[in-house]
Amino acid sequence: MTVRFGVLGAGRIGQVHARAVASVPGATLVAVADPVAAAAEALQQSYGCDIRTIDEIEAAADIDAVIICTPTDTHSDLIERFARAGKAVFCEKPIDLSVARVIDCLKVVKATDATLMVGFNRRFDPDFQALKAAVDAGRIGKVEMVTITSRDPGPPPYAYIERSGGIFRDMTIHDFDVARWLLGEEVETVQAAASVLVDPKIGELGDFDSVNVILTTASGRQATITNTRRATYGYDQRIEVLGSGGTVAAENHRQANIEIANGEGFHRPPLLDFFMTRYTAAYAAEIVAFIEALSTKTAPPTTGHDGLMALALADAALKSVAEGRRVNVSEILDA
Amino acid sequence: MTVRFGVLGAGRIGQVHARAVASVPGATLVAVADPVAAAAEALQQSYGCDIRTIDEIEAAADIDAVIICTPTDTHSDLIERFARAGKAVFCEKPIDLSVARVIDCLKVVKATDATLMVGFNRRFDPDFQALKAAVDAGRIGKVEMVTITSRDPGPPPYAYIERSGGIFRDMTIHDFDVARWLLGEEVETVQAAASVLVDPKIGELGDFDSVNVILTTASGRQATITNTRRATYGYDQRIEVLGSGGTVAAENHRQANIEIANGEGFHRPPLLDFFMTRYTAAYAAEIVAFIEALSTKTAPPTTGHDGLMALALADAALKSVAEGRRVNVSEILDA
Amino acid sequence: MTVRFGVLGAGRIGQVHARAVASVPGATLVAVADPVAAAAEALQQSYGCDIRTIDEIEAAADIDAVIICTPTDTHSDLIERFARAGKAVFCEKPIDLSVARVIDCLKVVKATDATLMVGFNRRFDPDFQALKAAVDAGRIGKVEMVTITSRDPGPPPYAYIERSGGIFRDMTIHDFDVARWLLGEEVETVQAAASVLVDPKIGELGDFDSVNVILTTASGRQATITNTRRATYGYDQRIEVLGSGGTVAAENHRQANIEIANGEGFHRPPLLDFFMTRYTAAYAAEIVAFIEALSTKTAPPTTGHDGLMALALADAALKSVAEGRRVNVSEILDA
Amino acid sequence: MTVRFGVLGAGRIGQVHARAVASVPGATLVAVADPVAAAAEALQQSYGCDIRTIDEIEAAADIDAVIICTPTDTHSDLIERFARAGKAVFCEKPIDLSVARVIDCLKVVKATDATLMVGFNRRFDPDFQALKAAVDAGRIGKVEMVTITSRDPGPPPYAYIERSGGIFRDMTIHDFDVARWLLGEEVETVQAAASVLVDPKIGELGDFDSVNVILTTASGRQATITNTRRATYGYDQRIEVLGSGGTVAAENHRQANIEIANGEGFHRPPLLDFFMTRYTAAYAAEIVAFIEALSTKTAPPTTGHDGLMALALADAALKSVAEGRRVNVSEILDA
Repeated sequence: MTVRFGVLGAGRIGQVHARAVASVPGATLVAVADPVAAAAEALQQSYGCDIRTIDEIEAAADIDAVIICTPTDTHSDLIERFARAGKAVFCEKPIDLSVARVIDCLKVVKATDATLMVGFNRRFDPDFQALKAAVDAGRIGKVEMVTITSRDPGPPPYAYIERSGGIFRDMTIHDFDVARWLLGEEVETVQAAASVLVDPKIGELGDFDSVNVILTTASGRQATITNTRRATYGYDQRIEVLGSGGTVAAENHRQANIEIANGEGFHRPPLLDFFMTRYTAAYAAEIVAFIEALSTKTAPPTTGHDGLMALALADAALKSVAEGRRVNVSEILDA
Repeated sequence: MTVRFGVLGAGRIGQVHARAVASVPGATLVAVADPVAAAAEALQQSYGCDIRTIDEIEAAADIDAVIICTPTDTHSDLIERFARAGKAVFCEKPIDLSVARVIDCLKVVKATDATLMVGFNRRFDPDFQALKAAVDAGRIGKVEMVTITSRDPGPPPYAYIERSGGIFRDMTIHDFDVARWLLGEEVETVQAAASVLVDPKIGELGDFDSVNVILTTASGRQATITNTRRATYGYDQRIEVLGSGGTVAAENHRQANIEIANGEGFHRPPLLDFFMTRYTAAYAAEIVAFIEALSTKTAPPTTGHDGLMALALADAALKSVAEGRRVNVSEILDA
Repeated sequence: MTVRFGVLGAGRIGQVHARAVASVPGATLVAVADPVAAAAEALQQSYGCDIRTIDEIEAAADIDAVIICTPTDTHSDLIERFARAGKAVFCEKPIDLSVARVIDCLKVVKATDATLMVGFNRRFDPDFQALKAAVDAGRIGKVEMVTITSRDPGPPPYAYIERSGGIFRDMTIHDFDVARWLLGEEVETVQAAASVLVDPKIGELGDFDSVNVILTTASGRQATITNTRRATYGYDQRIEVLGSGGTVAAENHRQANIEIANGEGFHRPPLLDFFMTRYTAAYAAEIVAFIEALSTKTAPPTTGHDGLMALALADAALKSVAEGRRVNVSEILDA
Repeated sequence: MTVRFGVLGAGRIGQVHARAVASVPGATLVAVADPVAAAAEALQQSYGCDIRTIDEIEAAADIDAVIICTPTDTHSDLIERFARAGKAVFCEKPIDLSVARVIDCLKVVKATDATLMVGFNRRFDPDFQALKAAVDAGRIGKVEMVTITSRDPGPPPYAYIERSGGIFRDMTIHDFDVARWLLGEEVETVQAAASVLVDPKIGELGDFDSVNVILTTASGRQATITNTRRATYGYDQRIEVLGSGGTVAAENHRQANIEIANGEGFHRPPLLDFFMTRYTAAYAAEIVAFIEALSTKTAPPTTGHDGLMALALADAALKSVAEGRRVNVSEILDA
């Protein structure tokens, strides 16, 4: 079975997904849509696909699935539209910045019986998969604490920040998903601290650039997440899971695995620069998993519910910062 | 100048300090006091020192300084007594489990003009000193976040836990001090989560065994501390400081620096087993610093005020857990 | 410009090159030839290429270049044949097991003005490229010593060993090439030791499975190579270059970048299993370099001369073992 | 039992041993002898020992054992003299630069039934002990290859080189001993290469500064040693043992276990500067082992025979360089 794809949006993340589709057996990139002609043409040139409008893709008989890489505020509408059109939908996180809107959208998905997979790429990284496999195999006993260090190399443009929904919904959301995946229990409460240390202008835009979060489950398992928008040494992506029997950690990836020693000491290159290089394999594996779910008619590994829950944790974190207290996730979901 | 020491208490930590005094130039171990004859005799045999009562040491003309290693609930009384007796005092943390009592005790110290150094050994570890030197030299720019991972290999006896004042005052207190030392600004607020995951009996005693803490300073710098009472792989002691220009981390110490590879992969020995082996050099350096302060008539690097502040952070953490909110340190100090 | 390729031989290494051609922009896999129908069909199925005979490929107007992946004893004949047919030739090492035959073959290549690149894949590995770049940038000063650790995970089949020309010509030949590449001077003398430690049957076949070699240049630079046919922990590929100003080393690649810690210590997965996984990127980069040489009409980075010299070092090593002495490379080349 | 020591020679290595004796339970430093008054007085001041002449120490009833740290050309005479005087003797390597003289000296030791231990400190390093224990425990199967990387931070003074007997007898001798210790079989043949790359003046003095050696045992086990007199990044001391079941390696020691990351990458401090700092624990453990041998009346772990064999390997290496061939150790011993 070959799944025929349309990619909606040919920006940075659309390019990442187009490359993944092109590199994966069982997937064909049929068409791309983007209002910016140059962006669409670049993909056409690289992969020999058609350029079509979103309407054309919606109506196309030769397209089985779409990958939504358009701006966040269009996600939920497009999900509903393509679910109703009978296409399988892969949507970049987040589904929407509003928990209520996400809940409504997921109702449509359910009603249409469409397949929806949300793009939490990190779960598909080979190292994190190996870490998860070690946890599942009982190598560290019962999970007790998850520690996630996640630092971007530098802040995004101000225009991006303004539309992003803030650091918790834009950046930490990936870590919330990873924490949920590894804790093995649903998160019950959220405590967070947030500062502006990297760039005061980010604060003027109403956002933060440096945050720490503690998540707690009903049985007392805890996860911590530390984020900053600036790590001068590259894209820092570390995970550790402590259990009753030991601990397991995934290491960072360097630009090259060499070490130079001289009178000043030992020197290794910086980390890979950002998600496009660090998670190349993960993006490809994510599409493989989506195809696998379609061909076996099973639920995809990252669902609309996962998208909802990660967003709820983000909202809870924001509320915790604002109100200076421990916030129960149910306060967000039942609001 | 040689400083002549009396050691009060010949238990586990008293032995550590006696060994440190014996190994350090400029220090002489004159006498030890302990109600348990066997404990005192063991030190006498190892180092050839006298066995005396606390009263005798207080009155002794041939003793310049005492190291207080007795049970916590005797610390503040002994500090006051020896300060009044004109001895320099080195006291193991904590000064007392009550912030009010510590404040009173420090007033006596001040009034007598005695030298008081509180035993926060980690500041004197050579690796942590190198880390601090890198921070102070501006190698990572302006400090933004401190991350402390501190895990004991196993829980202490129940009897110890009952008298310990709880994990925050007994174990995290060291990490609170390290965080204050590295943040470069006083902590303003504390958020904490605490669970019983290692041993339910610890919960029955009213304590926790697994905690995470977020500290925030006035300018928004943050520190996180993660603690557990059980790390199967040894005594896990890691510190990382992130700054505007980079990050610096201190690594763990293994039992041996070897690696074995076979069909299952690459294997390195567990970490050093606990503080006596991990911080041998730190305990010696701590006494050297105390002697240095005495001989140069300067303030010791870890003062009674440091002891007070670390305890206040512990109390704030406990309050944060109990009340589910961000606690301001001033709430504790001004109580 | 797109280079249209024919692959001769669809065995293990032919598959590696077919995959590389398929993954690289600017290259098209037009046809594959192999007397074993199933092998050729497997490549046809994977990459949609034709199956043709060697004669057909030789005569084909739609093929610009061939990759020779047939058994070693056919290499030199095929190089000559395709050079005369006006095709560019990429040939797996070695060109032949006889130095004299290689010299003759290279005369034909020269006379026909054909492009010949010899497959020394390691030079194209991204980490080794980074190491070489550090050396060339003067990061370690003037090169003094090269240390190569190269261990196969397990011995090849006996049938392979019988036709391989022995460990020096089959396995060490890659390390000889890397040593020449990094020493920055031609090797003058060779000393070698060789044993049978892994499998006595290998000795019965007249070969060795465990060898060490010292190479020396005219100015006294030295390289050492250590080889074994069995490393239980995976494919061990390390390079270190020591210079007057420091040292640079390339590290091994593990199956996953995770570490598990428990009561027995710290554990990381084994190394990648063999060259197909370890050098995936190198095989692709090698084809890219070949295409680059063709399109810029420049000499390829690994030439027939490199193939000759590596073989000469292998013969010198064998002679050193047999005669128990330091052998001058000129003894081999001028024989 | 307390062993009462006299230290002969208060230079660099005499200071190392005096410190070791002072720090070890069961040992007392009674006296030191040195024609340079200042050197002897420095030790007297540090450790409160007597200053005596060698004659006085020889005649002293309150001295059980001597540590010979005088210039190499006095070692064998002093060994014989103190063996005859009924003292136990610990002698720094080498016993003498002449194999014949060593053989004669060992005859005297045997005739007097004296205890002689030769100072091969590396065998007593805790990491190398752990490595050896792993080998002995069968963790890597049957030993096949030993790889020793041993690099001094910088060359010694010319005057030292002139009297040293050359790099093989002065520096490599330690590695020869380690190789013998780990191979588990006696070395049969030696191949060596030697260059002058660090300082031409060293060549003018008739010595080398950069060498590689291959040792082979009767069953075909091999050891390689790589030496240079200049490693800009510190004292490089690595050992790896490959066996049929895996490999075990001992890692270097850094000046501090920290890592700094910034835009240029990840940076760790240089290695410890030289043997006094790198092998502090080994020097102490060596004295403990000597005392243990005396108190249990057993052979010390490093004997006169070990001293002889390491020297014979050095002579064989020199002969291999001079004659360009594989040298059998018996050629040296039977000369």
